[in-house]
Amino acid sequence: MKSDVKNNAIGIFDSGVGGLTVLHSIVSRLPYENTVYVGDTARVPYGTKSARTVTQYAIGIGEFLSHIPVKALVVACNTASAFALDALRGRFDLPIVGMIDPAARRAVAASKNGRIGVIGTVGTVKSGAYGRAIKHISPDVEVLAHACPLFVPLAEEGWLSNDIARLSAQKYLEPMKRHGVDTVILGCTHYPLLKEVISEVLGEGVTLVDSGDEAALDLEGLLVDRGLHRKGGGASHRFYVTDTPDRFVEVGESFLGGRLSDVSHVDIP
Amino acid sequence: MKSDVKNNAIGIFDSGVGGLTVLHSIVSRLPYENTVYVGDTARVPYGTKSARTVTQYAIGIGEFLSHIPVKALVVACNTASAFALDALRGRFDLPIVGMIDPAARRAVAASKNGRIGVIGTVGTVKSGAYGRAIKHISPDVEVLAHACPLFVPLAEEGWLSNDIARLSAQKYLEPMKRHGVDTVILGCTHYPLLKEVISEVLGEGVTLVDSGDEAALDLEGLLVDRGLHRKGGGASHRFYVTDTPDRFVEVGESFLGGRLSDVSHVDIP
Repeated sequence: MKSDVKNNAIGIFDSGVGGLTVLHSIVSRLPYENTVYVGDTARVPYGTKSARTVTQYAIGIGEFLSHIPVKALVVACNTASAFALDALRGRFDLPIVGMIDPAARRAVAASKNGRIGVIGTVGTVKSGAYGRAIKHISPDVEVLAHACPLFVPLAEEGWLSNDIARLSAQKYLEPMKRHGVDTVILGCTHYPLLKEVISEVLGEGVTLVDSGDEAALDLEGLLVDRGLHRKGGGASHRFYVTDTPDRFVEVGESFLGGRLSDVSHVDIP
Repeated sequence: MKSDVKNNAIGIFDSGVGGLTVLHSIVSRLPYENTVYVGDTARVPYGTKSARTVTQYAIGIGEFLSHIPVKALVVACNTASAFALDALRGRFDLPIVGMIDPAARRAVAASKNGRIGVIGTVGTVKSGAYGRAIKHISPDVEVLAHACPLFVPLAEEGWLSNDIARLSAQKYLEPMKRHGVDTVILGCTHYPLLKEVISEVLGEGVTLVDSGDEAALDLEGLLVDRGLHRKGGGASHRFYVTDTPDRFVEVGESFLGGRLSDVSHVDIP
């Protein structure tokens, strides 16, 4: 019975292609796990939408994934993690990993001067979720959060290191740098593609925390603890999108860092 | 009876705040008309979504507006006009104005060398709707279409004339300029906010066609023809959004060029 559950996939979802960077982190760390990814491309982006709307979408996707079934759920979207994690945990009897807490813990551990920057979508920043998670661990840490709306289209255009990317990073990050943060959380799954230019602007002394890498680490811990860790065999990776697959495939491969096959359409209410 | 219909509002809808530039054009041209605006902010943007999905959303909004009732419908979104206009015309017995045809006619009239550029979202450009509309009027015209995904967040950030806006405009528009277009259609309702920087890059010899201005002119013609034109009295302007109103109000006022009041939430299936 237990061995059957081990073979169940890990369910991962995001509003679109961004969560593929998280899937990349998960597959790198846990190469034998089967995965099912849902990209809610008919309703992307979540970053400018309200808590109520995003929670409703997340629960719909959770229902779909839990019926596949899956053995764990990864909310590979910072906005959905900020808004909907409690509602998901109340509804589904599954190990659930979000983006916020793992990255917050890593940032607190990494910061030497107690000044942490958080960058993300308007929704994630407005939610204040990273600030709360960080202060829950270490109340004296100072948190500076800033939304960077141009980073998502820059990543999707593949403009990762041109003048426009550099100037946008400067405009968004200079105030944070001047304030002396020594650690910055990449609080949006699109941002790892811009890691180089972000790091260049912030300078070598600043540690970048990738929320996807930290979530993958957390997921590994949960699976090992519960005896659900799959340690060998071939792994399958399936993808569902709520809009037509064409653009998801076109843009998504640079996010995944690999070929996207087995992508189907699904309607989720 | 006819006078009652005259007092009915004009229904205008868009995926979000962009259509407020069209509303601005309509109110400038038709100051005595009542209006009801729907911004589908829970599902914005339409620009990266498929024809099927956008058509389904547009019909839902058409149902909502036709029950208010309204005396005419303006699809103040280029993507929805490109994808859903025929479906809307088949379904609703109302004068319906889209963004594509009025701008296409104006561009053909304005161009002297028969080279017309079209800029818009990925969805609008991929649909090829402007090219078809232009070639339907004048088959020999050469049409160059290009998507400019950064323009929407630039407009929403209010970065209308800084280095980032200028460099993005150069990167998107230089190939079109080199090709010698003498007329460019602003085929996305966000783009009029960036008119200055677009014009600066393209140069003085290039005519910009604002799809909202042309749609307002078309709407006036339709209302006058059918005796539905309201010629005096105070006008009311109501707004509905499918997500919570806060961000719509925050970002929308620069698009409307005025105060946004009377904004309510509505659920549209």
